[in-house]
Amino acid sequence: MSYKSGRHFLQIPGPSPVPDRILRAMDNPVIDHRGPEFAELGQAVLAGIKRIFKTESPVVIYPASGTGAWEAALVNTLSPGDRVLMCETGQFATLWHELAGKLGLEVEFIPGDWRHGADPQAIAERLRRDDGHQIQAVCVVHNETSTGVTSRIGDIRRAIDEAGHPALFMVDTISGLASADYRHDEWGVDVTISGSQKGLMLPPGISFNALSDKALARAKQARLPRSYWDWSAMLASNATGYFPYTPATNLLYGLKEAIHMLEVEGLDHVFARHQRHAEATRRAVQAWGLEVLCLNPAEHSPVLTTVLLPEGHDADRLRRLILERFDMSLGAGLGKLKGRVFRIGHLGAINDLTLLGTLAGVEMGLACAGVPHRPGGVQEAMRFLADR
Amino acid sequence: MSYKSGRHFLQIPGPSPVPDRILRAMDNPVIDHRGPEFAELGQAVLAGIKRIFKTESPVVIYPASGTGAWEAALVNTLSPGDRVLMCETGQFATLWHELAGKLGLEVEFIPGDWRHGADPQAIAERLRRDDGHQIQAVCVVHNETSTGVTSRIGDIRRAIDEAGHPALFMVDTISGLASADYRHDEWGVDVTISGSQKGLMLPPGISFNALSDKALARAKQARLPRSYWDWSAMLASNATGYFPYTPATNLLYGLKEAIHMLEVEGLDHVFARHQRHAEATRRAVQAWGLEVLCLNPAEHSPVLTTVLLPEGHDADRLRRLILERFDMSLGAGLGKLKGRVFRIGHLGAINDLTLLGTLAGVEMGLACAGVPHRPGGVQEAMRFLADR
Amino acid sequence: MSYKSGRHFLQIPGPSPVPDRILRAMDNPVIDHRGPEFAELGQAVLAGIKRIFKTESPVVIYPASGTGAWEAALVNTLSPGDRVLMCETGQFATLWHELAGKLGLEVEFIPGDWRHGADPQAIAERLRRDDGHQIQAVCVVHNETSTGVTSRIGDIRRAIDEAGHPALFMVDTISGLASADYRHDEWGVDVTISGSQKGLMLPPGISFNALSDKALARAKQARLPRSYWDWSAMLASNATGYFPYTPATNLLYGLKEAIHMLEVEGLDHVFARHQRHAEATRRAVQAWGLEVLCLNPAEHSPVLTTVLLPEGHDADRLRRLILERFDMSLGAGLGKLKGRVFRIGHLGAINDLTLLGTLAGVEMGLACAGVPHRPGGVQEAMRFLADR
Amino acid sequence: MSYKSGRHFLQIPGPSPVPDRILRAMDNPVIDHRGPEFAELGQAVLAGIKRIFKTESPVVIYPASGTGAWEAALVNTLSPGDRVLMCETGQFATLWHELAGKLGLEVEFIPGDWRHGADPQAIAERLRRDDGHQIQAVCVVHNETSTGVTSRIGDIRRAIDEAGHPALFMVDTISGLASADYRHDEWGVDVTISGSQKGLMLPPGISFNALSDKALARAKQARLPRSYWDWSAMLASNATGYFPYTPATNLLYGLKEAIHMLEVEGLDHVFARHQRHAEATRRAVQAWGLEVLCLNPAEHSPVLTTVLLPEGHDADRLRRLILERFDMSLGAGLGKLKGRVFRIGHLGAINDLTLLGTLAGVEMGLACAGVPHRPGGVQEAMRFLADR
Repeated sequence: MSYKSGRHFLQIPGPSPVPDRILRAMDNPVIDHRGPEFAELGQAVLAGIKRIFKTESPVVIYPASGTGAWEAALVNTLSPGDRVLMCETGQFATLWHELAGKLGLEVEFIPGDWRHGADPQAIAERLRRDDGHQIQAVCVVHNETSTGVTSRIGDIRRAIDEAGHPALFMVDTISGLASADYRHDEWGVDVTISGSQKGLMLPPGISFNALSDKALARAKQARLPRSYWDWSAMLASNATGYFPYTPATNLLYGLKEAIHMLEVEGLDHVFARHQRHAEATRRAVQAWGLEVLCLNPAEHSPVLTTVLLPEGHDADRLRRLILERFDMSLGAGLGKLKGRVFRIGHLGAINDLTLLGTLAGVEMGLACAGVPHRPGGVQEAMRFLADR
Repeated sequence: MSYKSGRHFLQIPGPSPVPDRILRAMDNPVIDHRGPEFAELGQAVLAGIKRIFKTESPVVIYPASGTGAWEAALVNTLSPGDRVLMCETGQFATLWHELAGKLGLEVEFIPGDWRHGADPQAIAERLRRDDGHQIQAVCVVHNETSTGVTSRIGDIRRAIDEAGHPALFMVDTISGLASADYRHDEWGVDVTISGSQKGLMLPPGISFNALSDKALARAKQARLPRSYWDWSAMLASNATGYFPYTPATNLLYGLKEAIHMLEVEGLDHVFARHQRHAEATRRAVQAWGLEVLCLNPAEHSPVLTTVLLPEGHDADRLRRLILERFDMSLGAGLGKLKGRVFRIGHLGAINDLTLLGTLAGVEMGLACAGVPHRPGGVQEAMRFLADR
Repeated sequence: MSYKSGRHFLQIPGPSPVPDRILRAMDNPVIDHRGPEFAELGQAVLAGIKRIFKTESPVVIYPASGTGAWEAALVNTLSPGDRVLMCETGQFATLWHELAGKLGLEVEFIPGDWRHGADPQAIAERLRRDDGHQIQAVCVVHNETSTGVTSRIGDIRRAIDEAGHPALFMVDTISGLASADYRHDEWGVDVTISGSQKGLMLPPGISFNALSDKALARAKQARLPRSYWDWSAMLASNATGYFPYTPATNLLYGLKEAIHMLEVEGLDHVFARHQRHAEATRRAVQAWGLEVLCLNPAEHSPVLTTVLLPEGHDADRLRRLILERFDMSLGAGLGKLKGRVFRIGHLGAINDLTLLGTLAGVEMGLACAGVPHRPGGVQEAMRFLADR
Repeated sequence: MSYKSGRHFLQIPGPSPVPDRILRAMDNPVIDHRGPEFAELGQAVLAGIKRIFKTESPVVIYPASGTGAWEAALVNTLSPGDRVLMCETGQFATLWHELAGKLGLEVEFIPGDWRHGADPQAIAERLRRDDGHQIQAVCVVHNETSTGVTSRIGDIRRAIDEAGHPALFMVDTISGLASADYRHDEWGVDVTISGSQKGLMLPPGISFNALSDKALARAKQARLPRSYWDWSAMLASNATGYFPYTPATNLLYGLKEAIHMLEVEGLDHVFARHQRHAEATRRAVQAWGLEVLCLNPAEHSPVLTTVLLPEGHDADRLRRLILERFDMSLGAGLGKLKGRVFRIGHLGAINDLTLLGTLAGVEMGLACAGVPHRPGGVQEAMRFLADR
């Protein structure tokens, strides 16, 4: 076995680096999930996570990864053959779309170029044409982890409202929560899906559904078979701080610590920090003369930045070289972007110097790999970061 | 906040105490689940867990608790309305039965008294009457965590074979694996379900489906909607050590260590150790003049012992008193046993002295709670343990 | 490599088992010992440890084990050839005596039978005979770890006072602090020596000198060469929360947590808990028909119990057998007690059930080793513990 | 309490960042330091540490920080009033000099400008003038942590030999060991002093004396009082893997892991890695137009780089600003360099990207603090690091 000296730079857009405080919180004996000590833990995290989603409605916590929470959102609210409207913002929207199909839903997919967020107008238009209100749900990915583009959830809410359409509004902010500003209640989202291993800075293994009254009402009629994902059993047990089946106790220890850390820093500060690092990163990319995938400045992700390589240059080769020489993981191009882009994660528990080490790794990697670029990206990011 | 001096005795029948080695293995930075280092981890645990199930067929690992693996077994192999034969061995069999019903299956439930394992003859008889082979699957709980009774899986296999019935054979050994002898291949089980937080000594959060060729063949026709639980996507990714969606990386670190520990000790030694502790516990119960719930000596669980209280004595009051005075968690009576029994877990990472501390806590608790009993249970257990 | 299942029972009279909370506190990145964050830590532990010693005078913290703190007490206060009065209470008093000799001090050693504490009258008598006040210091071991006998420090203080003798009074409570009641100021001790790995529940590696004004005044004239142990440099740096050389930072993290835990439980509760466990242990020994080494009931140690084996039985063989069969470490007989006694530690982070597991290990070990005894010690201890 | 997002950059010249592997190794239950399991640990670390010092003679391990090991080297080999020759290479040489004085030794101090290592010729010359061989020991600091200058130990050995002088040769490589090439046997050093918290990547708390036959022979005559530091008791116990008093067990766990990590990487690779990072750092400093304190290119430290600020600029203000804004600790100017320099640690468990993050923090700090400099240091370091 060989050890690389020093700490690996995990700069993929999630899982994000887990802070020591959270690892240590998790590194504790399991407790009886039916005992009184657990109830305190359960109530603390169930209350705390609502503040992170900015909701007063319940949030369900699953021992599952984010993909499970996608499935949960659908099976609790829909019936076989129901029509659902989704937006092709990238690979994760595509996967969610596939998942919905496997569950027996009829999915319409508003096409996209993977360089823009979901288009509120296109959604509104489609809904307006849906006279019979066949469409049961509109599903949008808030922060597309495959592209680094965010969708404007508030605007989409307004678009749905203007169309006067009763569809449920479901939003995946798996990689956005606790990094990008997110407001479940204010934006009138019915089901928000998220996961642990991004802005919450936890290892993967738990995921979330934040609900609304409307979603809960729909759940009563929904006929897709469900048991593990069933909200009603969850909510019944959660009322006293417990879970209907064995929860992922040690991740809940970590969640408690994560919520505490986020609240001590302050969510607004957390969001501003992510924006600042994202801006520094984009300035570096620009300085290198490379192209950021996201085309709309209003939709730049604070979580990750996706960089297009010049034609003829293989992004996976670059990533491999950077991993081997500089011990840094970057995100691969997914789906139709495979080999054409790499993704820099700048979310979660990082700071200016880690970001600059990251950008230095990219800049050196570009040089080593012979990718045409101008040096000076790190310099530019430093200038920006030193200034504010 | 207050701390109790010393270490809590977690003597419920799972989650079992997590050894420091495993907690420390988990207390490590998350790695890129799409990078080369992960593939090594993935391949190691996917290969290792097969040895624990004693199978050469694939084992699927879910980021989910055991309940999810129950659901997975059913949705991968069955279609809406399929008939399934289950056996009422206790509360967990009852919950699995309910889960199957929620998924839209037709479940027959062979009734039981919660003091015996599933009856091979009753199963054979029912199958023989099933001329048209309507029954698609026979589902049995190997180690009933609510009762401390094991079902004789080998005998049930023979019973199915003698009935000449083609039903799939699915076994839940969530609390049995790596504590009680279990042989997926030799016993011809088609799907074995298990979880992490029992004999594997891990925190809860991952669970398993061990498969057979027959199960895989059935999966191709099965029409229950599925995506998260879908074996085919799992197996495709697992081939190279990866997972189709984000796995619970840190639990996989722990799983690798757990497999290593079990194999260094030797599975046969692990099983013998559990049998020895179970026998010592039963001798203590007998010495107290109390009744073990399990009535058939061939079906005593090596994992836990369920103790009946004399009429008029509330087992939950006893458990509360023991928790408060002696900082030990015991298992509650579940379902129709609520208040009438308590359950002593003696599984996983424990040793003679921990068991004796446990039994001492019970014996003192009986005295403090005024439950009629003879002292001397610990003495009897010591005599047994010192002898071999 | 082989792993024993379950947790080792570390029942030696120190190091005592380190609670998870303390191990986790220590498992954190080192910080700059000259930075502002360190000063907060330093001030917190320097203030907190004074409360544990019950003193308002400074306490010096050394990166060293207890033996170093013995040396520190002497070299800071004495000059070559100075006369010192010590009391032979056991092996540790003997080692301290040897150490003093190596440093060039003239040591008188009041002989003892290793079954009693230091005799206040013998001390008073000797001091009264010391007309010219040649004796510069009286040195006593508070809790003799080799015998399980405590010396009555308050009484000795009174004896010195009654003799009207100006000698410094130095007390080793390395294994007594935070387990046995100890009052540096009230008892007028000039230097108290202690260590981390006993009642403070930390790993070994730091040790202490609690001072008095008189000790500090003496230090100004003392001419034994010293640098590492020099109080003056320590106190100068400590004033702002720092240390004159690199401190054992991670042990200080642990110390902060230990002080917190002790204060949340309450020192009086901590002392009562130790007394209760000691009494339970002695009752077990009596029930076995074996002899406790300590002969004076007023001097029984709350920290450990030393048990004499019948003639012709080798205590080390017994200990080895218990280690191999039951994975428990007990303390060996030291010095002239080698092979004749074993020592049961019941200090620090333990609870009733751990103690009973411990006593069960001893009782089974006695049986396995063929040491003549009556069974029933555990039973007797249970009776006592269940009663209060 | 407030948390800073991300990981603190601890870039002082020791303590160096402790790798997770080592923290986790230390985060384990204490074991009986007189039991058989300990002997295995003791033997492993006592053998392993010899390979790190490149010696076949014994290495003594103290539960103490490096300052204690300084004292140990002197008290084991010298007698009151002995004459010792030391070289003023910087603050640590000055402190060692003071310590020797406190112990009652006569110390001659060859003056130095703190910008060069010890001068072999000056030493040789002084020794040649010492006709009566009054000088008992020559003491040199290998890697001056206060200046970033290394002394050429091999050359000094040759100088002593050429002078034909029998003095002991003692070398402090507290901050050099396991970062800078060091050869105890080949260089004929009699006592080498080192500590845990630098190249060994451990927390502070243990320190070392590597011996020679000549040193051991001298120890027999040496008359400085000693007990805690006494080699003979140590070596007697070490023969079987034990220690004469309670060792710092958990740091020994860490030491075992550290030795393993260093040997898996290979010491030569470790040294080359440090050289490479030191060179990159110096190039950055040069690019900034600032001055490296060390004037002799043959004496540049691979462990740290000390940077002179232009007149009128306060290095401590710069360091404070960098700590507050960029969460990085740098080393302060010590002694007569206070306020005039800062020190960049680049030792132990770091890698290229961490170093570049570090240099970025310095470069931004210079800008924020208004220290005259040219940007481009990070750029220059990147160019260098990407090239090889």
